[in-house]
Amino acid sequence: MKLFRFGPEGSEKPGVEFPGGKQLDVSAFGEDYTEDFFGNNGIARLKTWLGEHQDTCPVIRGEFRFGPVVKRPSKLICIGLNYAKHAAESGMKAPEEPVVFFKATSSVTGPNDPVIIPRGSQKTDWEVELAVVIGKKASYVSKEEAMDYVAGYALHNDYSEREYQLERGGQWVKGKSCDTFAPLGPYLVTADEDLDPHNLRLWLKVNGELMQDSNTSDFIFNIPEVISHLSEFMTLLPGDVISTGTPAGVGLGFQPPRYLKPGDVVELGIEGLGEARQEAVAYQEK
Amino acid sequence: MKLFRFGPEGSEKPGVEFPGGKQLDVSAFGEDYTEDFFGNNGIARLKTWLGEHQDTCPVIRGEFRFGPVVKRPSKLICIGLNYAKHAAESGMKAPEEPVVFFKATSSVTGPNDPVIIPRGSQKTDWEVELAVVIGKKASYVSKEEAMDYVAGYALHNDYSEREYQLERGGQWVKGKSCDTFAPLGPYLVTADEDLDPHNLRLWLKVNGELMQDSNTSDFIFNIPEVISHLSEFMTLLPGDVISTGTPAGVGLGFQPPRYLKPGDVVELGIEGLGEARQEAVAYQEK
Repeated sequence: MKLFRFGPEGSEKPGVEFPGGKQLDVSAFGEDYTEDFFGNNGIARLKTWLGEHQDTCPVIRGEFRFGPVVKRPSKLICIGLNYAKHAAESGMKAPEEPVVFFKATSSVTGPNDPVIIPRGSQKTDWEVELAVVIGKKASYVSKEEAMDYVAGYALHNDYSEREYQLERGGQWVKGKSCDTFAPLGPYLVTADEDLDPHNLRLWLKVNGELMQDSNTSDFIFNIPEVISHLSEFMTLLPGDVISTGTPAGVGLGFQPPRYLKPGDVVELGIEGLGEARQEAVAYQEK
Repeated sequence: MKLFRFGPEGSEKPGVEFPGGKQLDVSAFGEDYTEDFFGNNGIARLKTWLGEHQDTCPVIRGEFRFGPVVKRPSKLICIGLNYAKHAAESGMKAPEEPVVFFKATSSVTGPNDPVIIPRGSQKTDWEVELAVVIGKKASYVSKEEAMDYVAGYALHNDYSEREYQLERGGQWVKGKSCDTFAPLGPYLVTADEDLDPHNLRLWLKVNGELMQDSNTSDFIFNIPEVISHLSEFMTLLPGDVISTGTPAGVGLGFQPPRYLKPGDVVELGIEGLGEARQEAVAYQEK
């Protein structure tokens, strides 16, 4: 299934898109795509429910806003330097085991919402990434069984303020957690779909210029390795989002570096998971 | 007020302790201590409600388990190296601005629950800390107004696996996020109480031996500075927990280092915020 969430920020409803593009409002199922949904076998239950109730669900017509594909995950975990070429462009050597950091979940936003350049920021950068959504509680999971813990996949842009990340006192989290720095979606494509997450083209353009163009087959650590590794250090909860790292082509990697300014348009996509578009805007005093 | 949560893990109820020690079950108020509670002026509403309904609330008698003082915060943010002597014992120089990292919120547990030494861990360490609970949404808050955003204060033990934190590939989060690594409580003492958070003794013992004994007056960055700084990089939400760093005396600081083993008993306290006791236990396969 292709799940999505739609409607104004903070009052999104759950939707399902069918092959051919028909989009249904499945609010009548009575659940949003939350930790409880994933943790209580929601994908299978929704599929069964649709078999009986599909015809009574409203078809969504006209324009709408996509929300983030998961409602408030408990964790948004990122893997750093997981493509060999990106590690090289960042001036760092390929890691021996996954580099792990968190983004604040308050940074999560819809895939086509504007990205807000933080107040005074000079170094807001892009990172197209494949995000994995966890389907059930995972602690000390082996590589062999790790894929059983995946609910599905989504497109993610791991926006990063490089000064905050690298020049402001230690840990990366400062440069990763600003509001709107984690557009997530448009779709959550469930793991039972015919999709090989280790062979997906992913790309990102800024103002039409192709900046990132790679394939998840270039992962240093594949998805089972990442899930198994993380589950040694923390319990993954249903709905938790793991972003698997970005390929070469981020602004930091240029000589001189290139960063976003208000009015720039970022477009990105992953094969089979849809596309997203974010316009950079200046921070506005409230 | 002194708020607390009590009962079995996952089904805690809200409680209030009065001067003199009387403890009331305030479930009838209809809200747990969550983001919604803090964000909708819950402390003031609860106080008003108690004025009318206090006599009808059940008095809690007998033994009970304390739960974490906040139900599932959106963020558990920690400040590193915020006491000059602790920075020195860690072999790091005092930071020029606050060092920030996250713990997974899945690590939050009750103040007297056992601390689970992760599977194979050799370097599980303690860190008594003053935790600040945020009372309302905070973005780009000045130092001058920062204290208006505080709901209250609690005792926190920022357990840390030093191998995971420092020897396993980069960011600290790996050593900070294991289950049970964030006992939080017993009490949330609300900010309107007569308590100077910048002059509180805090201490920690292992098997009766005093390991940490300091005072929050030794902060490198005080609470308004920390809140203002964080709110530049992320939006703080009601119920978010900020742990303000630990003083000297952690296991890592000894020559040779001293770490926890199963059976060790950790006791800790902060003046005015209560005490906690955690027994270290080995990880058990499930």
